[in-house]
Amino acid sequence: MESNIDRSVFRDLSYGLYIVTSKDAERMNGQVVNTVIQVTSEPPRIAVIINKKNYTHELIVKSKVFSASVLEESTPMAFLGPFGFRSGRDFDKLSKVSFQEGITGCPLITEHALSVLEAEVIDQVDLGTHTVFIGNVVRSEALKEGTPLTYQYYHTVLKGKSPPNAPTFEARK
Amino acid sequence: MESNIDRSVFRDLSYGLYIVTSKDAERMNGQVVNTVIQVTSEPPRIAVIINKKNYTHELIVKSKVFSASVLEESTPMAFLGPFGFRSGRDFDKLSKVSFQEGITGCPLITEHALSVLEAEVIDQVDLGTHTVFIGNVVRSEALKEGTPLTYQYYHTVLKGKSPPNAPTFEARK
Repeated sequence: MESNIDRSVFRDLSYGLYIVTSKDAERMNGQVVNTVIQVTSEPPRIAVIINKKNYTHELIVKSKVFSASVLEESTPMAFLGPFGFRSGRDFDKLSKVSFQEGITGCPLITEHALSVLEAEVIDQVDLGTHTVFIGNVVRSEALKEGTPLTYQYYHTVLKGKSPPNAPTFEARK
Repeated sequence: MESNIDRSVFRDLSYGLYIVTSKDAERMNGQVVNTVIQVTSEPPRIAVIINKKNYTHELIVKSKVFSASVLEESTPMAFLGPFGFRSGRDFDKLSKVSFQEGITGCPLITEHALSVLEAEVIDQVDLGTHTVFIGNVVRSEALKEGTPLTYQYYHTVLKGKSPPNAPTFEARK
């Protein structure tokens, strides 16, 4: 079956780039995610896809809440780095960035963010390596006008890579 | 709760633009979709979100297969129109476009497409107005090099609108 699949095709799919956060009673964490999408308009619901190995996954499963910050195009790689390539199990990613506490208790990353959303999980789908979390949006706020950072821009202009836990990860041949 | 929600925020989320098709024993149909995403890499799986009112929804539920064509940026509005704003229940959308039959039996729209994918549904999630279909990619083919059409480009450059059945539809106030 795999011989029928040209994996280069997956690079034609378009995404934004977001920081998704969650928390439990003791800790908060966040990570870069390319898959935040609106799934219904009435009521407003969003979905996010997270690798089961990620610490943020563990926190969302426990707390059933998450936040998503829409990053601006001018977000520097140095800001993204810790959220994409280091685990929150090993260090506190939120210690060096601005955030507010949302109505869900999730940290809302406001630095380099055009807008923030908070959601309460109503369903989750096990996809093997990843989980789709579907949430009712309970709050959303526009922070500033601007151009959203896209996955395309991250790869082609910023020369960023996909970390191994991304749903779009491709091992170098 | 709605007072906590600024719906303008949903416009900050980034998407591509695709034609998703399916078929049953007698008919084939396709529609424009903004939500095609890769959800896992191993095995390669994609998800698509379709309004329950759409004819393509009915066909995917029956046949458990769908295809997705990644549209190129230069796709003319006249090509998109019938796929986005008319129902396949009323007329044969495929009568005027080039397509091939895929290994799933789905029609593969190749005109204005950078690549095509075919998937077999392994799970579906009821979201009220819409369904998330999750599928194993059984075939994908790159057709040509180019820039994918994004939802952003469609709205800002082509001045396109979201049809009422889109997950991102907003009624004009």
